[in-house]
Amino acid sequence: MTAPIVAVIGGGQLARMMTGPATELGVTLRVLVETPDAAAAASAHQVVVGLPKDADAVAALLDGASVVTWEHEHIPAEVFEAAAARGIVALPSAAALAHAQDKIVMRERMDELGLPNPAWREVRTRDNVNAFLAEHEGVAVLKTSRGGYDGKGVRVIRSADEADDWLAGLATGGPRLLVEEKVAFTRELSAQVARNPQGDVVAYPVVESTQRDGICAEVIAPAPHLDPLLAAAAQGLAVTIAMELDVVGMLAVELFEVGGSVVVNELAMRPHNSGHWSMDGAVTGQFEQHLRAVLDLPLGDPAPLAPWTVMVNVLGGARSELATSLADVPDAGAKIHLYGKEVRSGRKVGHVNISGAELPQLLTRARKAADIVRDGATEGGDA
Amino acid sequence: MTAPIVAVIGGGQLARMMTGPATELGVTLRVLVETPDAAAAASAHQVVVGLPKDADAVAALLDGASVVTWEHEHIPAEVFEAAAARGIVALPSAAALAHAQDKIVMRERMDELGLPNPAWREVRTRDNVNAFLAEHEGVAVLKTSRGGYDGKGVRVIRSADEADDWLAGLATGGPRLLVEEKVAFTRELSAQVARNPQGDVVAYPVVESTQRDGICAEVIAPAPHLDPLLAAAAQGLAVTIAMELDVVGMLAVELFEVGGSVVVNELAMRPHNSGHWSMDGAVTGQFEQHLRAVLDLPLGDPAPLAPWTVMVNVLGGARSELATSLADVPDAGAKIHLYGKEVRSGRKVGHVNISGAELPQLLTRARKAADIVRDGATEGGDA
Repeated sequence: MTAPIVAVIGGGQLARMMTGPATELGVTLRVLVETPDAAAAASAHQVVVGLPKDADAVAALLDGASVVTWEHEHIPAEVFEAAAARGIVALPSAAALAHAQDKIVMRERMDELGLPNPAWREVRTRDNVNAFLAEHEGVAVLKTSRGGYDGKGVRVIRSADEADDWLAGLATGGPRLLVEEKVAFTRELSAQVARNPQGDVVAYPVVESTQRDGICAEVIAPAPHLDPLLAAAAQGLAVTIAMELDVVGMLAVELFEVGGSVVVNELAMRPHNSGHWSMDGAVTGQFEQHLRAVLDLPLGDPAPLAPWTVMVNVLGGARSELATSLADVPDAGAKIHLYGKEVRSGRKVGHVNISGAELPQLLTRARKAADIVRDGATEGGDA
Repeated sequence: MTAPIVAVIGGGQLARMMTGPATELGVTLRVLVETPDAAAAASAHQVVVGLPKDADAVAALLDGASVVTWEHEHIPAEVFEAAAARGIVALPSAAALAHAQDKIVMRERMDELGLPNPAWREVRTRDNVNAFLAEHEGVAVLKTSRGGYDGKGVRVIRSADEADDWLAGLATGGPRLLVEEKVAFTRELSAQVARNPQGDVVAYPVVESTQRDGICAEVIAPAPHLDPLLAAAAQGLAVTIAMELDVVGMLAVELFEVGGSVVVNELAMRPHNSGHWSMDGAVTGQFEQHLRAVLDLPLGDPAPLAPWTVMVNVLGGARSELATSLADVPDAGAKIHLYGKEVRSGRKVGHVNISGAELPQLLTRARKAADIVRDGATEGGDA
């Protein structure tokens, strides 16, 4: 048996969760991890330790691979060059990924395509910032164009003073900056699609996601009470973005719902936290789907398996050995996913999915299970 | 993170398919494989190469493990002794496993418990065989008490001549022999339960399985048109066996349906081919469930996710590189599982699950997908 090799840059939980589906498909998953204790290092079929800018490590990663893909956006140009030099397909491509790497590139492209952006502007000076604030009732969201994630690189500002440190960074090679209107959204949605190189596209149900401190806390699939036309519009938007930007793999379009419409918040070209529900709640989970897409296989059915699936993240808390939590969660329907990461406060270390017919009950159950995993049994547990 | 280690003896597809669920639970799966190219060797988190009778290999397997379990029945007594000497729990226990290892031990116990056996008798001589044949219209099923699987060690006989070779083996240390009445069954059923050391038990829906040449070919979950009372009786029978024999882990009770009732055919104390449907068709698949059970965790919900799930085995055929088949199966709902084994004619090398509401359509689709995986695309493919 010569299994196709999928090479992945990144050793976090997203690469880790590709492993099970890869095994079932008979695909070898080879990951480039920065340290041997990375979440994916324990699970992947083959492991290369090194940084994406380490040419030797990348060469070892690419050797004999059918395709190379990413679990995060921070992929240096040299990786694409190394793949091209070896004739190995890199997906999503550098041209597509640029829109997930750089928020200014993304905003410009959304404008070109006539897709719904919030008001935004690149800023280089305090005057730029002040002008935008003056036009937007004195409040804006300042973002670094590159390098942000999970609330990092994003800051709500009410004065140019609050932009000073990042503006100063521009002179010393810091990332370009943009300001966006602070959208008075009613909730956050995520529209995920998968696309393969042949151009097949499938759309997952649009979900509602709830963030706390800039980090995804909960997801409900599908988004409750979402106007069917708006749901279709959000899916269509994601399909359009996948096609126009030539995205291959999973694409998550994070959206703000506002006034019966949506605007684009961010793009992610990989499996995404807002799609973890699909591991247990859809015919084809997003991790299998990403592998299918980058390998140019027929895409799997994204249909849900139950009326509702709820995902609650486990962020690092009182319990340090998460495996001990398995004995403490009596809910037979709680699907627990642990990432094998050292527990640090607030760090994403696992999640719980529960599917069923009664949404309020599912939310209560999933939150309770996640609480137990994080902090220990509620009464006299080991935490 | 100190992940609990589950040690598994056996490196076939059953151990392989435990890996994905182990990863998600944050459990380290360590397997003892006979050869480095075993199906589980590519997927497991830790691999020890050696035979179950190799004391050094078993010592390496057991080192630091929370529990040791099995993916087949051929576990020598020395393994249980080695585990006991190290204070490592071995599940299912030697006393329980004896009933899956030895058909005479199993039949005697079923009789003691008053559970439905076919007529049977241990045979040591031609006269024993002839006497049984005379009482059963000249036909019987001759079985070796130990070592049979997938149709091996089982033979329909109509004359003592057909037993001569195995009878001769008795003198040279061959396994004990039994004859059973040839049950005129209408179909084969399988009742699977899981039990943990605390004594919690959960029962999966009773399924129908179809064998070809003694090998499982297809499974339909739940068994169509099964009388609800008989279904409950079959589940109750499996629960009783699990409790009375103190089985921990997954237990499959293979049954013959005959005249509105059932008789016990065989027992398997591990995940079983008749439970592969549960990987995609139940809230908790049998591989996660087995891990939960042997780790003494709360058991997962065995409820089905769809009205019907169909499983069709892929037996080795014309295609030698099964991974090439992924591109040839256009059915978006076909869940393909490949075992990474070298293809040999008739060998179990993968399976396909499909879930949905219309059984005849699901059967057609699953058979078609399995055919394509096995033999190549139907028109001008690469097979």
